[in-house]
Amino acid sequence: MKIAVAQLNYHIGNFEGNLQKMLKSVSDAKDQGAELIVFGELAVCGYPPRDFLEFEDFIERCDASLQSLMAASTDIGIVVGAPTRNPKKEGKDLFNSAYFLYNGEVIGIQHKALLPTYDIFDEYRYFEPATEFHTVMFKGKKVALSVCEDIWNVGNENPLYTICPLDEMMAEKPDFILNISASPFDYAHAAERIRVAQANVQRYQIPLFYANHVGAQTDIIFDGGSLVVAPNGKVLDEMPYFQEALKVYDLAEVMAGEKHQEQAKDKIALIHDALITGIRDYFQKLGFKNAILGLSGGIDSAVTAVMAVKALGADHVRGVLMPSQFSSDHSVNDARKLAQNLGMQYDLVPVQPMYEAYEAALKPHFWGYAFNVTEENIQARIRGMIVMAMSNKFGNILLNTTNKSEMAVGYGTLYGDLCGGLAVLADLYKTEVYALAAYLNKDGEVIPHSSIEKPPSAELRPGQKDADSLPPYEILDQILFQYIERRQGPKNLIELGFAPELVARVLKMVNTNEFKREQAAPVLRVSSKGFGMGRRMPIVGKYLS
Amino acid sequence: MKIAVAQLNYHIGNFEGNLQKMLKSVSDAKDQGAELIVFGELAVCGYPPRDFLEFEDFIERCDASLQSLMAASTDIGIVVGAPTRNPKKEGKDLFNSAYFLYNGEVIGIQHKALLPTYDIFDEYRYFEPATEFHTVMFKGKKVALSVCEDIWNVGNENPLYTICPLDEMMAEKPDFILNISASPFDYAHAAERIRVAQANVQRYQIPLFYANHVGAQTDIIFDGGSLVVAPNGKVLDEMPYFQEALKVYDLAEVMAGEKHQEQAKDKIALIHDALITGIRDYFQKLGFKNAILGLSGGIDSAVTAVMAVKALGADHVRGVLMPSQFSSDHSVNDARKLAQNLGMQYDLVPVQPMYEAYEAALKPHFWGYAFNVTEENIQARIRGMIVMAMSNKFGNILLNTTNKSEMAVGYGTLYGDLCGGLAVLADLYKTEVYALAAYLNKDGEVIPHSSIEKPPSAELRPGQKDADSLPPYEILDQILFQYIERRQGPKNLIELGFAPELVARVLKMVNTNEFKREQAAPVLRVSSKGFGMGRRMPIVGKYLS
Repeated sequence: MKIAVAQLNYHIGNFEGNLQKMLKSVSDAKDQGAELIVFGELAVCGYPPRDFLEFEDFIERCDASLQSLMAASTDIGIVVGAPTRNPKKEGKDLFNSAYFLYNGEVIGIQHKALLPTYDIFDEYRYFEPATEFHTVMFKGKKVALSVCEDIWNVGNENPLYTICPLDEMMAEKPDFILNISASPFDYAHAAERIRVAQANVQRYQIPLFYANHVGAQTDIIFDGGSLVVAPNGKVLDEMPYFQEALKVYDLAEVMAGEKHQEQAKDKIALIHDALITGIRDYFQKLGFKNAILGLSGGIDSAVTAVMAVKALGADHVRGVLMPSQFSSDHSVNDARKLAQNLGMQYDLVPVQPMYEAYEAALKPHFWGYAFNVTEENIQARIRGMIVMAMSNKFGNILLNTTNKSEMAVGYGTLYGDLCGGLAVLADLYKTEVYALAAYLNKDGEVIPHSSIEKPPSAELRPGQKDADSLPPYEILDQILFQYIERRQGPKNLIELGFAPELVARVLKMVNTNEFKREQAAPVLRVSSKGFGMGRRMPIVGKYLS
Repeated sequence: MKIAVAQLNYHIGNFEGNLQKMLKSVSDAKDQGAELIVFGELAVCGYPPRDFLEFEDFIERCDASLQSLMAASTDIGIVVGAPTRNPKKEGKDLFNSAYFLYNGEVIGIQHKALLPTYDIFDEYRYFEPATEFHTVMFKGKKVALSVCEDIWNVGNENPLYTICPLDEMMAEKPDFILNISASPFDYAHAAERIRVAQANVQRYQIPLFYANHVGAQTDIIFDGGSLVVAPNGKVLDEMPYFQEALKVYDLAEVMAGEKHQEQAKDKIALIHDALITGIRDYFQKLGFKNAILGLSGGIDSAVTAVMAVKALGADHVRGVLMPSQFSSDHSVNDARKLAQNLGMQYDLVPVQPMYEAYEAALKPHFWGYAFNVTEENIQARIRGMIVMAMSNKFGNILLNTTNKSEMAVGYGTLYGDLCGGLAVLADLYKTEVYALAAYLNKDGEVIPHSSIEKPPSAELRPGQKDADSLPPYEILDQILFQYIERRQGPKNLIELGFAPELVARVLKMVNTNEFKREQAAPVLRVSSKGFGMGRRMPIVGKYLS
């Protein structure tokens, strides 16, 4: 039996687009002799559909796509994810299901039992968990169908869950496992995914075909990396990352397990590719082509510009240099050099005239008050306004250049440098931005060396350096990582060797700046704990603040 | 037996503050002869604590508060909400529990079984549902302890859930029910809460004591309205809305059920009081005293100003009048008159000089482009910058004045009139803002009549009226209500009698402006479906857009 795995870039709510993509894959798979094709979780509507699932009309559109796929299932089995209405009055209204379609009929449905409700996931908001588990008979083979998380509790080892769906099916002696997933990227996730897939195969001694999504949905990036694991536990194939792919596997070859293919997993290279995917899909799925961003001469805007050019092309990225009286000459020169290196358009709009207009207008009201963060913010906000005006006039989307360290401690101006439709680097700590810059320069200088080597500065007052307000990034980033990704509280951080005053100061900065993150742009998520829907914090809380 | 119900304004993560408040209530209750006192759900840490629950240190702080309450329970039973660690490896790490403390010991714990995971609620993100249900024996009485949602599935009538916790306890023949809640306000919720409380009492024929939170946690407002329902189904007492209260009830009197007291439930009056609570607590819990806001002469900023003055006092609210070349004279006059009516400070900062500076700076870049929404946004953003600068300089929080109709259709400028720390009116449709304005003027003109009577306009280009870009608010608000609150899709809206083109146009506006709401200020929630955590929508989706 030949089995096709389709790793596609779906678009939330784009029913026609998703359907056409799947029908094309069905046709291609048939051309290649496949008897069965496997798509991703909730593929008909894209993932995560969020509260659209509460609209009856949305579910009807899902049903209509299923009908069209059913009509296309002549001589080929189609396994695809879609929501199912819960026929019982009690419980949530929907199931998150894998449909097995064949010759115009539904020959099997398996609902999802393990509903991720943590980090970015809200599945129990919408779905009732499955309580029944059966294999599906297809051309003499018994198929164990499963949806994403359902293979993530191998032998009940995952402390989150109390049942193991595949264990429940084993009495029926399935021949192979199909898993339809929507498993988002973080820089450590592909390795973890392989570990879990192999653990399943080792437990059940049958092959596993795993079909993932690829492409980005706003902040959430799917890396693909769909898997075929042979009964001997070997990864027969790991499909490419960050691109659509359709591959056909011969079950007999998979059973033999003599091939082995995995993708390289370098952290910074993965982040690089993920960010390009994230930018590209944000624009493409919103129907935009052109980006704009402020270029300060610093490393964050430089790295963001390079990523944008890689994602959209140099003709589609415009930089704006907006020096103030506090900007050093080398900042403007570095920004200009970067734009020239990239071959992208740039404009120079000094902020001084606007700054003076605000100063004059506010002078009568600010009488007796000294220069302080207010005036620093005015400069940052003038810059935000200029790039937003250009974005409005030219129809391009403003990219935000904030990094995760700044976003964490609130070192940024709301409505100023925090402006933007998409925050490209805000899930990378400053030290990771340096690593990405080095990666981008590995074949020659794209980002000017001086942008990388000079001490970071917001240049909003004379001689200002980040180090005046913040601990050194090497230390700060470690504390932030332990607090944010690892959820270590103050006691544990002190046990890890960080000074108590420093820990208190950093956690206070993080917690009192929740109000800024509440209004920040969506953040391309590349770590296991990014800002946004994956991290939900009170604003008026008084804890570690 | 005398039973005290404590309806307190907790503060998320303010362990010391919450504890001292509860200890004071315990002491007051004892003075009044109470043998038992009942606090709210998760009272030790405040509600909703969100992802702070993932921090071991946070749970330890909850435990420490419980210990202190236990030490204070000499001769008085204390029922209080706190998280409990799940001792089993499988399942979520915590339970959401009601503790019964007495004479220095825990004499009963009942975990919550029905975990709301919809709208603003994320309880299954953190908590494992209870599976065991037992009454607690206290001074010869059997007490059925329950946590919030656990009484909201009376006889399994709520389609969301499959078990009814109180049904499970009835074999033990309890004498009365205690429910500890954190049940947020919306303008229809108090009536619903009474209906549910009465349904429980009618089913079990024993009295119910229901203790709610009061006060706001950022966007979520608790109205209090704690309840005592007599076995005959009468509401013996509904405690006041929007204020802390401690009341002691004699069980014998409750059993007799001869008294009856309910609070008035006028929609606009409730919203009025809720918004004042929301503003007051946002400032108080963040440690701020002073608000600032732009006054346009229009109804939204006028209503917001009145609410701010009522919440914070006229000495603590500052208005800024920022006319542009397109502002009419009467706008400035209306704004000035409002400020004078309220006795609040106001400043006049015309935007023209800044506008000209931007115009000059951008002219070389905008050559050949006509005046459009860009220049409208520039004016709105200059205003945002001026009020933010004043907010930074004087240390006051900017209030946002957007209404729900505008927020829904994206009729507002990101980083302009969408600036602000808290959106006061953004859960009120424009027609509801008019109703609130009428309510505020019921005893004489506070809001100038002309602010109410003139056609709504953003005044960003000559002669501009909202009606040029939007359907009449009377129609628009109905469509929005049906779509947002009632989740009616396009087909249903058309069936309700709205024109198909209009429906398509409105839904497209709503869905393509999700990116603006993503970056908006927290919205004081007064309806059953506000913008923010309660409504989670994709940004790059292509559905009804």
